[in-house]
Amino acid sequence: MDRSDIDILVSEVGPRDGLQSISAILPMAQRKAWVAAEAAAGVREIEVGSFVPAKLLPQLEGTGELVEYARTIPGLTVAVLVPNARGARDAIAAGAHKITLPLSVSETHSMRNLRRTHEQVLAEAAEIAQLIAELPEGRRPHFEGSLSTVFGCTLEGAIPDAQIARLAQSLMAAGCDEVGLADTSGYADPTAVRHIIKLVRGAVGDAAVTGIHLHNTRGLGLANVLAALDAGLDTVDSSLGGLGGCPFAPGASGNIVTEDLVFMLEAMGLKTGIDIDKLVTVRTILQESLPGEPLYGFIPDAGVPLGFHPATQG
Amino acid sequence: MDRSDIDILVSEVGPRDGLQSISAILPMAQRKAWVAAEAAAGVREIEVGSFVPAKLLPQLEGTGELVEYARTIPGLTVAVLVPNARGARDAIAAGAHKITLPLSVSETHSMRNLRRTHEQVLAEAAEIAQLIAELPEGRRPHFEGSLSTVFGCTLEGAIPDAQIARLAQSLMAAGCDEVGLADTSGYADPTAVRHIIKLVRGAVGDAAVTGIHLHNTRGLGLANVLAALDAGLDTVDSSLGGLGGCPFAPGASGNIVTEDLVFMLEAMGLKTGIDIDKLVTVRTILQESLPGEPLYGFIPDAGVPLGFHPATQG
Repeated sequence: MDRSDIDILVSEVGPRDGLQSISAILPMAQRKAWVAAEAAAGVREIEVGSFVPAKLLPQLEGTGELVEYARTIPGLTVAVLVPNARGARDAIAAGAHKITLPLSVSETHSMRNLRRTHEQVLAEAAEIAQLIAELPEGRRPHFEGSLSTVFGCTLEGAIPDAQIARLAQSLMAAGCDEVGLADTSGYADPTAVRHIIKLVRGAVGDAAVTGIHLHNTRGLGLANVLAALDAGLDTVDSSLGGLGGCPFAPGASGNIVTEDLVFMLEAMGLKTGIDIDKLVTVRTILQESLPGEPLYGFIPDAGVPLGFHPATQG
Repeated sequence: MDRSDIDILVSEVGPRDGLQSISAILPMAQRKAWVAAEAAAGVREIEVGSFVPAKLLPQLEGTGELVEYARTIPGLTVAVLVPNARGARDAIAAGAHKITLPLSVSETHSMRNLRRTHEQVLAEAAEIAQLIAELPEGRRPHFEGSLSTVFGCTLEGAIPDAQIARLAQSLMAAGCDEVGLADTSGYADPTAVRHIIKLVRGAVGDAAVTGIHLHNTRGLGLANVLAALDAGLDTVDSSLGGLGGCPFAPGASGNIVTEDLVFMLEAMGLKTGIDIDKLVTVRTILQESLPGEPLYGFIPDAGVPLGFHPATQG
C-alpha cells in the first residue's frame, strides 16, 4: 500500500470484529458491498474476516471468498485474523495481504479464547512464519502478532511488564514482522497506552510497533488514540458504527467508531485519505441489512463543524 | 479551597448546565440532595445554578437558596453563572465563592445568547469587578470571564485568533481574575485545544488560564481533556450523567460525563479526591427525580477494571 499521502492509517475491523460479536449474520453480498463502499470512501486497510471454523463463528463463514473479492479492489490492503497455522494456510491460499495472529498476554485469557498456552501460540506463530517464508517474494503477506489483553485482563487483571516484553520478543523471534497492541478488555487509559507502547517498543524496536486496537468500553477510546499518536503510532483499528467487540472478554464491548475516529484525525489536520461524508453513508448498508442492530457514533448525528470542509465554504 | 491533595479539580456543572438544558424541573430538595451527595463523594467545586430571571430558565429558580445551602457544606467551592452585573449582585448577596460571566467570542452568538455586544458584556464585567472590589477582603468571590464558542461557533464558524486574544485581554483588563475556555458548540479537537490554550495563555499569562469547559457533542470530550491536561490546565468541567449542554447553540449537546472523566483521571494516576463508586451512586437521585431523562456514561455500565481499587484487591 502506498502510504505517502496519508498521515494515519485507519484500519477498519468491523467486517471481522464487528460481525463476530453479533448474532445476526450479514449475507455475503452485503459483506462485499460494505468492504467495497468503505474502500470507495478512501479506507486503505480492512480486516475482512477471520479463518476460524464456521461452526464456531458462522457470521464469518466464507472469509476466503471475501478475501478474494476484496483483493480485486485497487489499493486496498486485505487483512484477516487467524487463530492458528491452519487458519493462516487458508488465508495465504485466499491471498490475504496481512495476517494477524492474536497472542493473549494473559495466559488464562489465552486458554479461554484460543484454548492454547503461550508456548502453543508461539509455536503456531513460528509455523506461520515458515509458511510465509516459503512463498515467493512479493507474495508474502505481512505477518502481525497481536498482544491481546495487553492493558489488563478481566480474568487476571494487570499483566507484569516483564511478561509482556518477553512475549513481544518471542513473537518477533518466531518470525512476526510486527507486534500489535490490543486493548481486548477495554482497560486502557492514556497513561497506560504511553507506558505499554514505550515498553514494547523498547523490547522489539520502534519499527516493529506501529498499530493499536482499542476498545471504547469505558469511553476512553479516542483519548487513548490521542495518547497512542503522541507516543508515535500511526495505525489505528476501528469499526464502522462501533459494531462489535470481543465476545470472549466478559463485560468488554465496543470498538472505536470509525466515523468519530476519522473526524478527530482530520479535525487535527492529520490526513487519513478518507472522505467522512462518504464514510457516514456506508452505515446505510448495515442499517438496512442488520435491522435492530445498534450503531454508535456522534458524527453521524452531530455532523461536522461549520467550516470543517474548507473547499465547500466558499 | 485546599487543593494541595489533588492534581486535577473536577468542577461539576450539572446542577447548572445540565438542568438548564432539560425541560423537566428538578425540585429544590433534590437539587440540594444532588449537591450534597456529590460533595460527599469528594467533588470540591460545583456550579449550582445561574442567576437569570426565572421566566427565562424556570429550572434554575431559587439558585440563591441553593447557594446558601451549598455554602454550609465544608470544603465545597460554590460556583454560579451570571449573565450580567445584576445577576452578579444576587450571586454576591447569596455568598457564591466563584462567579463566571460568559463572553461569547462570536458576537453573533453573544447577541443570540445574552442579547449583548462584546462591548456591552465587557462593561458588565467591569461593573462586576467593581462590585467585588468594594467587598471586604476575604469575602470577595473569584471572578472568571469565560470565553464561550472559543473553538468555533455554529453561526460564525471559526473565530479569528486575534479576536480571541483581544477579548481575553479585555476580560482581564475589566478586572476578571481568570479567563475560562468553553467549547459551547462541541467543535473542539485536541489540536485546537492545544492551540487555543497556547494562544490565550500567551495573551493573558499562564496563571490566568487554568480551566476548560468541554462538550462531548462529537465524541471527542475526553480526548480534548487529555490535550488540555498536556497543555497544562488543571481544572475541568463536567456533568453527572452527561446531563445537559447549551440550549442556545443549535445542534450542540452533551457535557462530558463526570463519572467517565473521574475514571480517566484516576486511571491515569491523577488524584481528583473523588470516590468513583460513591459518585456513581449519585445518579440514583437523578434517575428517581427525573424519570425518562437520559443519562450517559460508560463507567456506570462497564464498571472499573479489575485491579482499579488496589486496596480492595487483597
